Order: sequence, then C-alpha cells, then structure tokens
Amino acid sequence: MEQHTPFTLLGRSSECAARRGEVRTRQGVIQTPVFMPVGTQGTVKAVTPENLAEMKAQIILGNTYHLFIRPGHELIERFGGLHSFMNWKGSILTDSGGFQIFSLKELAKITEEGAAFRSHLDGAKLFLSPENAIHVQQALGSDIMMCLDTCIPFPATRDETVAATDLTTRWAKRCREAHDKRDRLLFGIVQGGMFPELRREHAAALIDIGFDGYAIGGLSVGEEKQLMHEMTEATVPALPADYPVYLMGVGTPADLVEGVWRGVDMFDCVMPTRNARNGALFTSKGKISIKNARFRDDSSPLDEECSCYTCRNYSRAYLSHLFHAREILSYHLNTIHNLHYYLNLMADIRGAIETDSFTRFRHDFYSKLEHE
Amino acid sequence: MEQHTPFTLLGRSSECAARRGEVRTRQGVIQTPVFMPVGTQGTVKAVTPENLAEMKAQIILGNTYHLFIRPGHELIERFGGLHSFMNWKGSILTDSGGFQIFSLKELAKITEEGAAFRSHLDGAKLFLSPENAIHVQQALGSDIMMCLDTCIPFPATRDETVAATDLTTRWAKRCREAHDKRDRLLFGIVQGGMFPELRREHAAALIDIGFDGYAIGGLSVGEEKQLMHEMTEATVPALPADYPVYLMGVGTPADLVEGVWRGVDMFDCVMPTRNARNGALFTSKGKISIKNARFRDDSSPLDEECSCYTCRNYSRAYLSHLFHAREILSYHLNTIHNLHYYLNLMADIRGAIETDSFTRFRHDFYSKLEHE
Repeated sequence: MEQHTPFTLLGRSSECAARRGEVRTRQGVIQTPVFMPVGTQGTVKAVTPENLAEMKAQIILGNTYHLFIRPGHELIERFGGLHSFMNWKGSILTDSGGFQIFSLKELAKITEEGAAFRSHLDGAKLFLSPENAIHVQQALGSDIMMCLDTCIPFPATRDETVAATDLTTRWAKRCREAHDKRDRLLFGIVQGGMFPELRREHAAALIDIGFDGYAIGGLSVGEEKQLMHEMTEATVPALPADYPVYLMGVGTPADLVEGVWRGVDMFDCVMPTRNARNGALFTSKGKISIKNARFRDDSSPLDEECSCYTCRNYSRAYLSHLFHAREILSYHLNTIHNLHYYLNLMADIRGAIETDSFTRFRHDFYSKLEHE
Repeated sequence: MEQHTPFTLLGRSSECAARRGEVRTRQGVIQTPVFMPVGTQGTVKAVTPENLAEMKAQIILGNTYHLFIRPGHELIERFGGLHSFMNWKGSILTDSGGFQIFSLKELAKITEEGAAFRSHLDGAKLFLSPENAIHVQQALGSDIMMCLDTCIPFPATRDETVAATDLTTRWAKRCREAHDKRDRLLFGIVQGGMFPELRREHAAALIDIGFDGYAIGGLSVGEEKQLMHEMTEATVPALPADYPVYLMGVGTPADLVEGVWRGVDMFDCVMPTRNARNGALFTSKGKISIKNARFRDDSSPLDEECSCYTCRNYSRAYLSHLFHAREILSYHLNTIHNLHYYLNLMADIRGAIETDSFTRFRHDFYSKLEHE
C-alpha cells in the first residue's frame, strides 16, 4: 500500500535534533512537539474536556485494555466512539493494550497468536490478537492507533530481546493488514530493548511494513535516564525524517526536554495527573509536595510564573487545606495545574524551536530548577 | 439595639404561606426562597466556585466546626476570610458548630458555659462558648452567622426539651451581645423539640432578644415528615413576617416544596451533594440510582428536562461507566447535576410564587414523580 505521511515539518533546531511540526488526524491538526494527557478509562482523571480545551490540550490518550474491559469497545462504538462518549472534540490516540496486559504479569500469557489474559476486574478470560487490537481501537474511534507489541522486561538478555522484538514485528505486519480504515493513522512501535543495534534493526523492519508514524516503546521501564537517552538517540536517526516520532510513556519535564532535543515529536505520561492526585506539583522551580507543612500558611500561588486556573485563583495554603482534608477539589485543582504545566512547557518548547533558541531554552529550564 | 430587617417581601401566595422575597447581605442580594449548597470544609464538595456561579447559586453554607478544627478560623482570617480563601464571590452563611458538636455524642459535654468537645481528627480538647462561636464566625468572614444552640435528641421528653431550649435562649442572648460587627447578619435558632407550644414560646423569647432572621432548628432529626411539617407550621406564624425564615438542614426536593408552602425562605442540606457522590440523582421524574444496570447502555441524558452541564453533554451510559470505574469525574458531573436540580427547583418555585401559581406548581411537581 502506498503510504502518505501525516507529518509536516515546519522547522528544526540548528543545534540539535529538535523539530517543529504538525501531525494531521481526521480530527484536526496537532502542533508538535506535543504532550498527550492520559485518559485511561474514558476520562482524563479529575478534569473535564472543557478544562482540557482551556489548557489547549490537542490530543489525549485512551487505554485500549481498560476500555475493552469496561465499559467495552462495542458499547463505546454504539455511542459513536470515544470522542462522542466522553465529549472530547480533540484527537485521540489509543494504545494497543499490550503494555497493560504485560503489566498483568502472571495473569497474561503471550503466544504467537496473541495475548491471553485475565481481567484485573473480575478475572474473566480474555484474548487480544494483533487483528483484534486494531478492531477494538477502530471501534473506539481512535484517530491514532498503535500496533499490539510485546513488552520486554528490564533487564533482559539479548536473546529474550530478539525473540520479543521479532514477535512484535510479526504482530506489526498483522496489525497493518487488519487496518482497513484509512482515515485513521496506525503507528508501529520500535522495540529492541536496551540494544542499540536491535533498535535500529527493528526500526528498519517496521519501515519496511510501512506505518503512519513510529513510536519508541519499552523505555522508562526502570533503566537509568542515560540509557533511555541512548536508546532514543539510537532509534530516532533510524526512523524516516518525514514521519512523526512518539516516545511512549515518557516522562518527567526534563525527560520531555531531552526527548525533544533528540528529535521526538509526541509524548504521553500519567505523571502529571497521577502526581497531582498525590500532591506532587510541578513548578518552574521544580517539583513541590503540597503535603509539606510549610505550605499551610503560604499565601502565594503554586507557581508565580503559572497562568493556570488554579494559580490565578488559589493560594498554596488553600491547596494544602484541600489536600489534607482529602477534598475532591484538591485532585481537580492539582490536576489542572500539573497538566497546564506540561502543556505550557510544550508550547514554550515549540516557540523556542520556532525561533531556533531551544538550546538557550533548555539551559534556562535547568538553571531555574531549585527543588529537584 | 434597634433592629433593621434585611428582608424585603416581594410577594406572597394567595393560597398558602409561600412568599417571594430578598435578603440583603453585605455581599449582595439573595432572591428567596433560596437553597444554600453546603460547603463543609471550605469547598462545596466536587465542584468549583465557577460551577456554582454557573448554576446561579447565590449563597453557600460553611461549617464552623469543621473550619475551626481545620485549617482554623485564624488562618482563614489572615487570608481575608472564607470568601477570599476559597474564591467564592457570593454570600456565605455559617452554622454555629452546635449541631456538629452535638453529633460527636460522647466526645462532647454541654455546660452552661458552652460546649467542651474533642476534635474528630486528632482528639484535641476544644471548647466553644456562645461568644466564641460568634468570634469564630466573624473571623471566617461569614455574611450570615448563626447563634450557638443546643440540639435536642429525638425523641426527647418535655422536661429535656424545656431545659435544652432555655439554655439555647441564654446562649442566644450571649451571642447577640458578642455580635459587634453590624454589617454581618445574626440569626437566632428556634428550638422547642416536637412541642408546638414550646416552639412558639421559644420564638417569642428570641424575638425579644432581636435577630436579623430566624431559623427553625432541630428538625429532620429522624421524626416523621408529618411531624416536621407540623413543627414548621407551629413556628413560622410565631415569627415576625418581615424577617427571613430559615429551615435548617432540610431536605428532599419535596421537603423544600412543603417548606416554602409553609412560609420558609431559606434551606440548606447535604442531600444533593452527598447523594451525587453515592450515585443517587434527582430528576423531574424522581430520584434514580446511576448504579442500576439498566443505565449501562442508556443513551439519554439523566433528565430530559434538565439544562445542566452534565445533561447537556453526557449520557446515562457514560455516567454509569464513570460511577462504576470510580472516576473523580463521576462525583463532579453528578454533583453539578444534583445541585442544578435543587437550584433550578428553587428558581421555578420563585417564578411560581411571582405568578401566584405555586399551588399548581406543587400539584405538577408531585404528579411528575415516578420513581420515589
């Protein structure tokens, strides 16, 4: 099949691999580099779609595994897809479910055919094949679908890594063949563990099959930051420059800066939302814990430099009170702040690449950090 | 001291005691009859002040006991009062803390001087006198303060009721004397248990002291609805017609209709917010439980007649999914719906009184109910 790229390159840094681009989905155009908030169960936890729109979120991620189990992709399809079901007008990327099934450990069994697993909710026996993973994502109405991949434990031997990566390639072919809705995008996932040459080989194998974009999978699984950066550096140059590159499940604000530096266009992570619910909040000076007693009487906003709804209207003392009182509003306000921080960071990064000042931006980013 | 009423009578029903009025606070003018959402710990649970404003909430209730214990009234005073601390621009009524202390049962000891009690959070020994209850409410920046009252268990003997009611009168005098911020309103609370003549006597005693409004306390404590209505009917005519009447802690939608019918101007209750979090939702046809399996695949909104944010944007199936998945958005969307239902009911009641069609309104209200 002839492949058309959904990516338009708008500019690149003269000093690193950072690039400014656009990804076209049937839902609209996404400005990259982009961060995608995670909406596991048909909602980005603790915020509304209007909150996301106000923060200028462009695309969110839905978890196929969770939605497959509850409420079921068929129900969501009857409701016109996930966009309509959850009232989200932006784009949606769905993962394939592979990572979650892999996380079930002894509840999952991987064969050539696919992944047999038991629901974490009720123990029901379920099966996801590569074809099925595509059909479920199509039913969900996903704009960007991901191939079913096998995840590789860390650490893993070279032999284990080769075997799992080869299976991912065979599954990727089957996903590509099952993909019959051409208005949706399908991304391949580069595995290869912590072996640079396996990463490069796998990238070549996936390019051979041909996808609308390429993801770097199997990172941020417990390895050192340096190793994660090395694997990114090994993979990105092996991918076609005119297709979007997505670093899956990454990461901290610094990880985003470093990923962009190395040529990544798309990121997702539960960190801003999950941390928010635990009271860990991102600021221009680093991460703070709102649990800390010193905030109980602090009349300043979370971050003096932040323009989010939470920072415009509430003091650290109030947020401290809500957190200690376990009020639902605490999760809401903290999540708005953290997502705004991530989305605003990406907007600033895009601006810096446009003016070819990303090196300076990265330097300033680190020099402001106090707490981490 | 000369007493000026904050109440303006705008109209009354020709067929019952229902009346349309306004209560002036330093924060603005409240259209009555009015329902006051409860914001126990410095937030109406699961919604923002903007959500409340969008639903046209005019006044909310803050719980003195809870705020006294955490984060403390002195901290809130340093932050410019509760309005500023929690970012709420409407009016605030604070209770006195009496009811919550009474609910602590064996942790509380009532003497002539006041109420000694232990914090439900850490067991700390605390004391609230009538004077102190006023000073704490002043520190909170309350627009409408309540006298510290003693609560009467149900059932109670006549002797027990007389003793507790007389103590409430003596405390009310002390509250009145301690009340030195004349831009705030102070309401007396009529007790008298389930004895109509004690209710009337107590009303007279409080009128003698002189307050800016009068509350009916000690109802909705486990008695039959009929008895609650009888006590309301015994009390309202004993109160001055040119002052606001507030029925504390009441109640169901039908209780509001019946309270208005008997001349009540103000209500508060945790029912819409608490029920929302338990999945019990109010509709024009009665209460439904979103837990019910029949809603899993139901594409209709919660209430076809409702114009709230939740009903405009989400299906029962989506709300069912969020509830079963225990998503925070479930509490948020359900609370918006239930509060909108209550506030909209009161707006409709005000409209019906204005056109002297409240009898018809009440008849229609009951004839539409299917589920309850």
